[in-house]
Amino acid sequence: MAAEIVNPRSDANTGNEGADEPFDPAFALHRGGKMAVQATVPVRDKDDLSLAYTPGVAKVCSAIAEQPELVHDYTWKSSVVAVVTDGTAVLGLGDIGPEASLPVMEGKAILFKQFGGVDAVPIALATTDVDEIVDTVKRLAPSFGGVNLEDISAPRCFEIERRLQEELDIPVFHDDQHGTAVVTLAALKNAARLSGRTLGELRGVISGAGAAGVAIAKFLLEAGLGDVAVTDRKGIVSRDREDLTPVKRELAEITNKAGLSGSLEDALAGADVYIGVSGGTVPEPAVASMAPGAFVFAMANPNPEVHPDIAHKYAAVVATGRSDFPNQINNVLAFPGIFAGALQVRASRITETMKIAAAEALAAVVGDDLSAEYVIPSPFDERVAPAVTAAVAAAARAEGVARR
Amino acid sequence: MAAEIVNPRSDANTGNEGADEPFDPAFALHRGGKMAVQATVPVRDKDDLSLAYTPGVAKVCSAIAEQPELVHDYTWKSSVVAVVTDGTAVLGLGDIGPEASLPVMEGKAILFKQFGGVDAVPIALATTDVDEIVDTVKRLAPSFGGVNLEDISAPRCFEIERRLQEELDIPVFHDDQHGTAVVTLAALKNAARLSGRTLGELRGVISGAGAAGVAIAKFLLEAGLGDVAVTDRKGIVSRDREDLTPVKRELAEITNKAGLSGSLEDALAGADVYIGVSGGTVPEPAVASMAPGAFVFAMANPNPEVHPDIAHKYAAVVATGRSDFPNQINNVLAFPGIFAGALQVRASRITETMKIAAAEALAAVVGDDLSAEYVIPSPFDERVAPAVTAAVAAAARAEGVARR
Repeated sequence: MAAEIVNPRSDANTGNEGADEPFDPAFALHRGGKMAVQATVPVRDKDDLSLAYTPGVAKVCSAIAEQPELVHDYTWKSSVVAVVTDGTAVLGLGDIGPEASLPVMEGKAILFKQFGGVDAVPIALATTDVDEIVDTVKRLAPSFGGVNLEDISAPRCFEIERRLQEELDIPVFHDDQHGTAVVTLAALKNAARLSGRTLGELRGVISGAGAAGVAIAKFLLEAGLGDVAVTDRKGIVSRDREDLTPVKRELAEITNKAGLSGSLEDALAGADVYIGVSGGTVPEPAVASMAPGAFVFAMANPNPEVHPDIAHKYAAVVATGRSDFPNQINNVLAFPGIFAGALQVRASRITETMKIAAAEALAAVVGDDLSAEYVIPSPFDERVAPAVTAAVAAAARAEGVARR
Repeated sequence: MAAEIVNPRSDANTGNEGADEPFDPAFALHRGGKMAVQATVPVRDKDDLSLAYTPGVAKVCSAIAEQPELVHDYTWKSSVVAVVTDGTAVLGLGDIGPEASLPVMEGKAILFKQFGGVDAVPIALATTDVDEIVDTVKRLAPSFGGVNLEDISAPRCFEIERRLQEELDIPVFHDDQHGTAVVTLAALKNAARLSGRTLGELRGVISGAGAAGVAIAKFLLEAGLGDVAVTDRKGIVSRDREDLTPVKRELAEITNKAGLSGSLEDALAGADVYIGVSGGTVPEPAVASMAPGAFVFAMANPNPEVHPDIAHKYAAVVATGRSDFPNQINNVLAFPGIFAGALQVRASRITETMKIAAAEALAAVVGDDLSAEYVIPSPFDERVAPAVTAAVAAAARAEGVARR
C-alpha cells in the first residue's frame, strides 16, 4: 500500500472512481491528466546524485553564469516550449478560463512531443490583461526555448504576440494564427498545382476575421495570392466600413483589392477559393456561385461551413478540419516541426520566410501523389515533421536568425 | 538524417560536441538537460487524437468550466509542482541569475519525480522584485498543484512565501527553509532518543540566520526544543542588538531564552546541539566547549563548518550535508514526500502539523536500527518517501486542509 501512496497519480486513467464519472471515453482517458515529466539522466545512487545535483551541478551553474549562452547546451531550455493561454478563446467554447483550458493545453503539449520531439509545458494564466500576460511571459522566458501562444482571443492575441516578439529573443508563435495559415497555404499551393494555376491567378474569400482569418489573409497575400476578401459578421471587410477595429482597418488596407462590399455571398460570387474559419453555414447557392474549379476549405470544427457533400458538387478541391474526410487542414502538421526546426538552430524568432518554408515543405510531402483528395498529408504521415523541421531550420540559418 | 533532425535534443548527452566541452563528467551529463516531458496517453492514430485532443477534449473542458474542481481529476494539475526561483541564492553560489540556476531547478525537478512520483517544472524568473514574483506565481497557479520556492535569497523569500500562502489555495513551500527544517528535526529527534533525552532538555545553537537558519529555529522551537540561539556574522541574534532586520528582530523575540550575547563561540559554550547552515568554520575549541554528549550537525556543503573528524572528538552524534559521511541531512528526504502527500489529498496548504508529521515519519524509518552513525535514513532508502507521503496526507486530513 505504501508504494501506491507515494504516487499522487496512482488512480490515473483507471476510470474506476465510479459514480461521478461521466460515461464517455474522453473522460476516462483524461483522468489524472495526459502527461508527465521524466528524468533523462540516472538518479539511482549517490554518485548519480552528486553529478545531477549537488555538488556536480554547481560547476554547470557557474559556467552558465559566466557564459550565458551555455544555458542552451546544459539545460532543457532549448528543447522546451511554454504553451501559454489565458483561456479566452478555447476551441469553439470561447472564454472558459484558465483551468478549463488545461486539457487542450496538455493535448497541445503531447502533440508537440509526439510529432516534433519538442517538450512542452501547459501554462494557463490567471489573467486576461494584455500587459500582465506580456509581463508574465517575459518573466518566464529564461526557462523556455520558445513560447506557443494558444487560444487567446482576438484582438488581444495580436498585441500580445507582437510585443513578446519584440521583447524576447526566443520564438513566440501564436499557433491559432500562424499554424493555421501555414497549413492552409500548403493545401492551397497543392490545389493550385493540381489545377495548373498560380496563386497569383486566384481570388480568395475568408469567412472569419479573428486570429486565424487575419493571419491566413496576410500570409496568403505574402505568399502571392492574387486577392483575398475577408468577411466578418457584418460582411466584407472593406475600406468604406466605419465600424472596423484597428486590426480590421489594417486588413482592409491590404486585402480586397477588388473593392468588394456587401455580404459573404457577394464576395463568393466568382471567387476561386473559399476558406472558412468562422463557423456558421454558407448557403449552397453561394457555393454554386463560385468560379469553375473552385477550392473550398471549410475548416470549422466539428461542423464545416460547407458540408463536403455540398462542396463537391461545385468545387474541384475540398478540404475540412475533420479527420473523417480527405484533406484535413490540421495545425499539428505545422507547429511541431516549426518549433523543432526553430529550437534546433536556436532561432531568435520565427520569421515569415521560415513559415513559408514550412508550408512549402509540407506541400512537397504530397509530391507526385497529388490528387483532389490529397492536397495535404495526413497528420500521421511520418515524413511531415522531419521535412518541416529541416526546412524551417534551413530557412532560419539562411535568414540569419539562427544562433547555431 | 531526417529522423534525427526532428528531435531538437538529438545531440543530448552524447558529450560529443567536442572542443569546448569542459573535461568534467558533470558537463557531459548535463548536455541537453536532465528532463523531458512524456505523454501518458496514446497518440498513435486519429481515434487517439479525437479523444486526447479535438473533438473529445472539448467535453472535458466544458465539464471543468462548469465544475472547476474537476481540473484536479482530468488534468495533470494535481500531480505537477512549479519549482520557482529567481536565481538569487543558488547553492553556495549566490545571485547567479535565472538561467544559471536552471541546472539546479532541473535537478530538483527530477528528484521530485524520482523520489516522490511528483511531476515538477523548473520556472526560473527574470525578476527579483517581490511584488512581481508574487504576481507572476499567482498567475501561473491555475496550471499547478503546488509551488516549491527554491534558492530565493532572504529576507525576500519570507515575504514571497507568506504572501503566496495567503493568496493561493495550493501548497506553497520554500524548501530551503522548511525542507531543511523537517530533516533537521527528524535527525535531532533520533539523536535525542539515542541519548535518552527530550528535545525540551536541549539547548541549541544555529549558525546562519538566512532562510534555513530562521526556519530551523522556528520549527525546532515549535517541536519542543528547550532553547536555541541563532548567530549571524555579527554574533548572537539577541534583543539588545540594534542592527536587526525585521525577520531577525522577530527571531530575537522567540529564540535565545537564555539571553546570551556575543559570538558564536560564546553561544556554543555548554550548548547541547550545534546546527551549521552558514558555511565558514567553527574553531575546534568552541566545539570542545559544548556540553558532554553534544550533537553536531554541520550542514554546509561541500565544506562542513566542523569537519566530522574534529566533531567526533567531542560530540555524541555528528551529521553533515555530505553523502560521503554517515547521517546526511539531505532535503531530498523530505520535499518529495511532503508534496506527494499534500497533492494526494489536494491539500490547500502545507501546515506546521504536516511538517512535523513528515519529520516524525522520517525519524521513525530509522526504527530500532538507531545508532550514532544512523540517526537519519539514506536518501535512497525506499521506505522514506512512502512513509513521509502517508504521514503528510494523514495530517492534512486530520487538520482539515485536505480536499479529498
